[in-house]
Amino acid sequence: MTTNEKALQLHAQWEGKIATTAKCSVTSREDLALAYTPGVAEPCKVIAANPEAVYQYTIKSNTIAVISDGSAVLGLGNIGALAAMPVMEGKCVLFKEFGGINAFPICLNTQDTEEIIQTIVHIAPAFGGINLEDISAPRCFEIESRLKQLLDIPVFHDDQHGTAIVVLAGIINALKITKKSKEDCRIVINGAGSAGIAIAKLLLTYGFLHIILCDRSGILHKNSPDLNWMQKQILSSVNLEEKTGSLADAMKGCDIFIGVSAPNIVSKEMVSSMNSDSILFAMANPVPEILPDLAKQAGARIIGTGRSDFPNQVNNVIAFPGIFKGALEGHASQITEDMKLAAAQAIANLISPEELNEENILPMPFDPRVCAVVSDAVKRYIK
Amino acid sequence: MTTNEKALQLHAQWEGKIATTAKCSVTSREDLALAYTPGVAEPCKVIAANPEAVYQYTIKSNTIAVISDGSAVLGLGNIGALAAMPVMEGKCVLFKEFGGINAFPICLNTQDTEEIIQTIVHIAPAFGGINLEDISAPRCFEIESRLKQLLDIPVFHDDQHGTAIVVLAGIINALKITKKSKEDCRIVINGAGSAGIAIAKLLLTYGFLHIILCDRSGILHKNSPDLNWMQKQILSSVNLEEKTGSLADAMKGCDIFIGVSAPNIVSKEMVSSMNSDSILFAMANPVPEILPDLAKQAGARIIGTGRSDFPNQVNNVIAFPGIFKGALEGHASQITEDMKLAAAQAIANLISPEELNEENILPMPFDPRVCAVVSDAVKRYIK
Repeated sequence: MTTNEKALQLHAQWEGKIATTAKCSVTSREDLALAYTPGVAEPCKVIAANPEAVYQYTIKSNTIAVISDGSAVLGLGNIGALAAMPVMEGKCVLFKEFGGINAFPICLNTQDTEEIIQTIVHIAPAFGGINLEDISAPRCFEIESRLKQLLDIPVFHDDQHGTAIVVLAGIINALKITKKSKEDCRIVINGAGSAGIAIAKLLLTYGFLHIILCDRSGILHKNSPDLNWMQKQILSSVNLEEKTGSLADAMKGCDIFIGVSAPNIVSKEMVSSMNSDSILFAMANPVPEILPDLAKQAGARIIGTGRSDFPNQVNNVIAFPGIFKGALEGHASQITEDMKLAAAQAIANLISPEELNEENILPMPFDPRVCAVVSDAVKRYIK
Repeated sequence: MTTNEKALQLHAQWEGKIATTAKCSVTSREDLALAYTPGVAEPCKVIAANPEAVYQYTIKSNTIAVISDGSAVLGLGNIGALAAMPVMEGKCVLFKEFGGINAFPICLNTQDTEEIIQTIVHIAPAFGGINLEDISAPRCFEIESRLKQLLDIPVFHDDQHGTAIVVLAGIINALKITKKSKEDCRIVINGAGSAGIAIAKLLLTYGFLHIILCDRSGILHKNSPDLNWMQKQILSSVNLEEKTGSLADAMKGCDIFIGVSAPNIVSKEMVSSMNSDSILFAMANPVPEILPDLAKQAGARIIGTGRSDFPNQVNNVIAFPGIFKGALEGHASQITEDMKLAAAQAIANLISPEELNEENILPMPFDPRVCAVVSDAVKRYIK
């Protein structure tokens, strides 16, 4: 039986990958009087008088919503709310198992930006944080930024920031090996959707200066056709030399390639045209932009992918459980850029100088230290 | 320590009365590949091709939302979304412990009817049913009826229908003792909000003919001031004699009093003015419309209250877990009037003729048979 067949069979057995459970027993009249009426009126009254007490008496302190409109699910595209459910449940499982966080899937049967924003604002009271997931670009940018203004709880689009944090962590360690400086590195990001743009932004914030974004039409520049508003915005900070041309043109003489795009679109020739000690994060899933052995043959020094069966897996699960754990424990109202940078640095620092090598730049997803160090890093930046 | 003090202390210890848990472990790469990427794509694809498969592969088959806008919480009134959380969590505990159903609290920070309806429609995909809770009248009637039209999953306002079902069950058994017929009984319901109106409707559907509704201003009639649309509507079926006057006037010569109103507003004199073998459900909580011993002294034969420390507790928990269990297991798209009547009858039938007496007309909330018989009754009416 293949993994896919087994996965389908198991999903039918599970009948849902999460459950809700009661933390208090109700097997007697006294139990009922304490957990429900009349006793429950007491915490209600305390919260009515002091809304902050909701964190003391309810699940809000440790519960997040995993929210999608089903518009950009995995590599499957716009499959809608119902079909997105298994992914969102899976994400909830990861939040619980890796971060100890209660997470509940909310799949929205609207893909209208305003309706999504309003719906999330309306259901926010039960939640201590909002994890947006698999919402297509550029809507995801507006939805996240508007929600950050409207809500007093953290809002985090994992496809953007989870990916960006782990990529940055990997690059921090890769640069230790290649001894290149961030100021000099030339970076090409292929894929100008939610992940590609978020990676570009975080790398700029970290201090990289020379970034070029590409998409199917080649290098993004100010006169590229069909730019969305976010692409136009980021072009004030990337490709300042106003290069034009193909992905192959972009990769000539660059130091770092980051792919969040499509299988097999990077050739050995393109890798060979990069500077020496080149670094590639080929994260298209399940088939990367170029397979690691081909990239090595073409001269690449460090290669990461999204896959667990190659070295240097770039997996968001390294970041998001600890990010939310820290934010919830510290009652953060936002996930700030400082927190993201601190999380990336903390992830990178988990690999000691002795352990660091070309095939070991990132901790394993199951490394039990990961969530705690990310959480602690985030908490240090809560004001 | 009082119950209230202990309840507050326990709520602080619990930090939320429910949790989400993972039904599948993710402790290895293989686990991750099965519960998350890449394996999770398989059930997604199956659901995208056949939306009904969502019941086979996700939590939707056994998960409901407990939704409130915080506008009419317990006896506390309009305390808002955050302060309603402990009650909604408590309800979720009861759904799980009594019915085995996953339930998640959704507290809405809007009290606008249209916004509530739209929000619930938008979050419906994850849920197999919607339990509305503590939403003020008459908005609750429109919200429920509109949602029933818009959604293909059961929508049930427990304050209305849960209460009505258990009251009807109690009355069915009370009539066996008093040997009165439903056609002849004169019923007075005090309280013309969500519960009072729902009780009136279900009693009419069951076959009672003579019902009068009262509120603070006395007997409701067509020329009563400030009637809402639902009160106007129900007046085409109740008080057909167009009586006017006070609650005391209404109770003269009536057989059954049902109070969903306020403490101590029924006097011994009012009970004495009822017909012989009178039945009272005095359900104001925690202090009933009249205390059972006073009502007995005044000649009442059968008395029920909302309290667990008096006989004949009218407790919604007798109904709602089984209602939803049956509806979910049978993939019902609605909770129909037939299902509610069948549920009431099934609850009543749990008290055998030998056990039936003035102080034992309803099963105990903790009777382990209750949920199963209610669920079975509901399932018999799923088309």
